[in-house]
Amino acid sequence: MSDVLVQLAATLEARKQADPDASYVASLHRKGLNKILEKLGEEATEVVIAAKDAGDNSGRKELVGEVADLWFHSMVMLSHLDISFDEVLECLAARAGVSGLEEKAARKS
Amino acid sequence: MSDVLVQLAATLEARKQADPDASYVASLHRKGLNKILEKLGEEATEVVIAAKDAGDNSGRKELVGEVADLWFHSMVMLSHLDISFDEVLECLAARAGVSGLEEKAARKS
Amino acid sequence: MSDVLVQLAATLEARKQADPDASYVASLHRKGLNKILEKLGEEATEVVIAAKDAGDNSGRKELVGEVADLWFHSMVMLSHLDISFDEVLECLAARAGVSGLEEKAARKS
Amino acid sequence: MSDVLVQLAATLEARKQADPDASYVASLHRKGLNKILEKLGEEATEVVIAAKDAGDNSGRKELVGEVADLWFHSMVMLSHLDISFDEVLECLAARAGVSGLEEKAARKS
Repeated sequence: MSDVLVQLAATLEARKQADPDASYVASLHRKGLNKILEKLGEEATEVVIAAKDAGDNSGRKELVGEVADLWFHSMVMLSHLDISFDEVLECLAARAGVSGLEEKAARKS
Repeated sequence: MSDVLVQLAATLEARKQADPDASYVASLHRKGLNKILEKLGEEATEVVIAAKDAGDNSGRKELVGEVADLWFHSMVMLSHLDISFDEVLECLAARAGVSGLEEKAARKS
Repeated sequence: MSDVLVQLAATLEARKQADPDASYVASLHRKGLNKILEKLGEEATEVVIAAKDAGDNSGRKELVGEVADLWFHSMVMLSHLDISFDEVLECLAARAGVSGLEEKAARKS
Repeated sequence: MSDVLVQLAATLEARKQADPDASYVASLHRKGLNKILEKLGEEATEVVIAAKDAGDNSGRKELVGEVADLWFHSMVMLSHLDISFDEVLECLAARAGVSGLEEKAARKS
């Protein structure tokens, strides 16, 4: 399961050159960074709303879909700016250890 | 690299029971869902701002960190609601194929 | 100029009962709170993006329109929840004086 | 009540030159546009969360405060960019009439 995102990143990269009239991803790239960021902001709001409604099974399913949409559009944005998805993973890896989490706590609070 | 998120999900799950005074993650769980969603909204805004400033190397590094923060807090939220991160990966897997992306395009536009 | 918002609040209240197929406001009420909140989140993101692009006259004009959209949808939301717009004004009035601003500073920082 | 915003805009303009160590508004200006936009994004998320919790009197009061915060920081942002708040009011005035609302409906849908 864990390499889903690696595969998705590759698919998104390939889609960048697709026909914008046939591919949703290519159409986002054509519309440009602002449009991609608007989608990202929309999806973040939808995650917040869905999380407040996640009291039952149908609500939880909805939330999972909204989180997937948020991550999907984050990855399209990285691809648009030619930033490798691996850089985000490296950054998260540094936080996966105990010390990383505590360092973050210290930095933010 | 690809199992960073699986490992992070496990670390986050373990941290749920940690001392809230010593662990940032445990302190988020203690503060509750609204606080976690506020953080998620904050990080989404910071991603948008950083993406607009990603013209140079320092800006790109900043953006990578903000995307990592956004994903990190998404995962804390899922953990708080006892939703497995695997469900999001399954959802993204369905979109990684050609047909998935086109289906999304049809649904959204 | 200052009673524009009072007039707008009255117009929005009247529009609540309009035909949803003919009135944008009535259509938002029919779609419900979540849809109105999605729009509010969208407009907030568009304000952030427009503010980062507000370097020239056309960018500034765009930003003014996005702020108007954000306030407009805030007012539709209040109307949807039967909360009077006056309550927000009262709250802002309390912050308009010196002491109000300083109290806020103390509370937030 | 209606000129609260005019008065607030004047207060905010005066506060721009205040001592950042003594005034919350001046401290925002010193921190710069990105910080002001982060606050705006935070407040927008807090409005969405509070609106989902607005089922009782205490929830409604909380929501009114969050909308006030969102508007307050919108006005600080306009002031930071030297854009008059009147321009937003003019824009909203154009939407207060029937035709304005319908034009918006046509433009967005």
